[in-house]
This record gives sequence, C-alpha cells and structure tokens, in this order.
Amino acid sequence: MDEAQLEAIREGMSRPFPFVERTGFEVVALRPGYCHARMPLEPNVNHIGSMYAGALYTLAEIPGGAMALATFDASRFYPVVRDMHIDFRRPARTDVEVVVELSDDEAERIRTAAEERGKADWTWTCELTDAHGTVVTVTENHYQLRVHGS
Amino acid sequence: MDEAQLEAIREGMSRPFPFVERTGFEVVALRPGYCHARMPLEPNVNHIGSMYAGALYTLAEIPGGAMALATFDASRFYPVVRDMHIDFRRPARTDVEVVVELSDDEAERIRTAAEERGKADWTWTCELTDAHGTVVTVTENHYQLRVHGS
Repeated sequence: MDEAQLEAIREGMSRPFPFVERTGFEVVALRPGYCHARMPLEPNVNHIGSMYAGALYTLAEIPGGAMALATFDASRFYPVVRDMHIDFRRPARTDVEVVVELSDDEAERIRTAAEERGKADWTWTCELTDAHGTVVTVTENHYQLRVHGS
Repeated sequence: MDEAQLEAIREGMSRPFPFVERTGFEVVALRPGYCHARMPLEPNVNHIGSMYAGALYTLAEIPGGAMALATFDASRFYPVVRDMHIDFRRPARTDVEVVVELSDDEAERIRTAAEERGKADWTWTCELTDAHGTVVTVTENHYQLRVHGS
C-alpha cells in the first residue's frame, strides 16, 4: 500500500459517516499496524464539563477498523467489532488521544486464520490518554476480521 | 416527585448535551424505577447501513442516568457510569429501543448504601431491541450512585 492510499484511508476514517464526523474525531497518523487518533473535548462535552462516555467509546472503537484497513487487503477482508469492555478511570477534561498497534506477527496470524476459516478474532487493550498523559479510559476490544462473501 | 418534575427530567434527558442531542436520542417514558428510550437509525447510520456502535452505546448508557434522576433525590445523589461491557449481537437496521427498570427493593438498597458510605454500586443488563423485537445488543452496565460533596 502506497502513501497516497494510506492518506486516503486516514482521511476517510476521520469522517467515515455522520455520527463520527459530528464528534470532530480525527485519525492523526495511520500506517500498517499503527493508528494514532484524537477526539476533541469541545463538541463532546457533557453536563459536568468532561468528555461524554459515548465519545470516549467512539475514540476507542474507530482506530481498530482504520488500522485493519491499513493493514489487511480491503478487497478481501473487512473488520467488525464484536464486543468491548470500557472502564472509565478518570474524567477527561481535555482532548483525548489513543494509539493502537498490531505487530507484523499478529497481523500474519490474523490474516492466515481468516483465509483458512473465513474469519479470525483479535483482541487488544486501548488506553485513552488526556493532554496531561493521564489514562482516562481503558478498553478491551474484541474484533473480527472477515473474508468478503464467506 | 410529581408528573411535571418527571416530564422535565424526561425532556432534559432526551437532550442532556449536544453529543446526545445530535443522535436524535429520546426518552419515551420515565418514572421512578423505569426508563424507556429510543435511538433513531437515520442520523446514526454507519458505512454499511446499520446503526453505528457508538449510538448503540449511547442508547445503553443514558437511560441508567435518567432513571436514577427519576428515582433518587437529585439534590442529594448523582449517578456515574463506572464501566460497561457491550456485546453486538446483530446489525441494527431500524430504530432501536431499550427499557431499563429498577425495583423498589433494589432502589432502597442503593439509597441506603449510598447514605451510609457516600456511594453505592449497581449493575444491570440492557437488551437493545430493533423494530422486529430482535435483540441487537446486550450490555452489562456498572453504575455508581454518589452523594453530592462526599
């Protein structure tokens, strides 16, 4: 995948559909096995001045899909979220960021398993951090890579 | 709490802050120990024509707070979401609804515990159903009722 293709995915995954676009979510950097994303506080502030839990959920959820599109051949595979556990540790009173990574070995395991069985599960932990570096939310993400048409 | 107060809470919790208002979420009915809420598909549709996971999260999250405001004395107590597990069972291709209930006995246990210790945990399961009655998402919600200033 070349730089122009990665940039098109990064741009597209910053506003994949209106719900996400309304939050101001942005994919800051994207490459195979890596996604850095940000959620701004202001459009997502709740009744007590911190970031609404649903915006934190969105920030934890979208980067897995973006990273999958940058890592796996989108003409053959697509990712789905199966379930998530989300633990709110501290109120977020600034913009919030997350980095999601996937090693080459793990990507190869997922790709091979999906090719063999039509789908493959993978799980990772997300730490969402505020502008002070404080972990405000921790999630455990359960995703599945599926083969189109299987 | 009289009918006018309940109606004011129902109205307020249908648009508690912009993030939720943008989704078109609505509290349909609210009374002590009971909240019925709805999330429309159209403003929340994702790239594959179903309801985005973050809108389903929001529909599972807000009713617990609305019900707490209708059940407990808001001048003394406030609810917070601690963590949630969300399991996506089926794609939602219609508006989605949820009913959250809390028995008088459980409300009394939570109230008494919060008065004694400044906070009290409670947990419940949400089933989100589509217009055909199919359960599309199941969540386990962990909330805490806290005493103001404690």
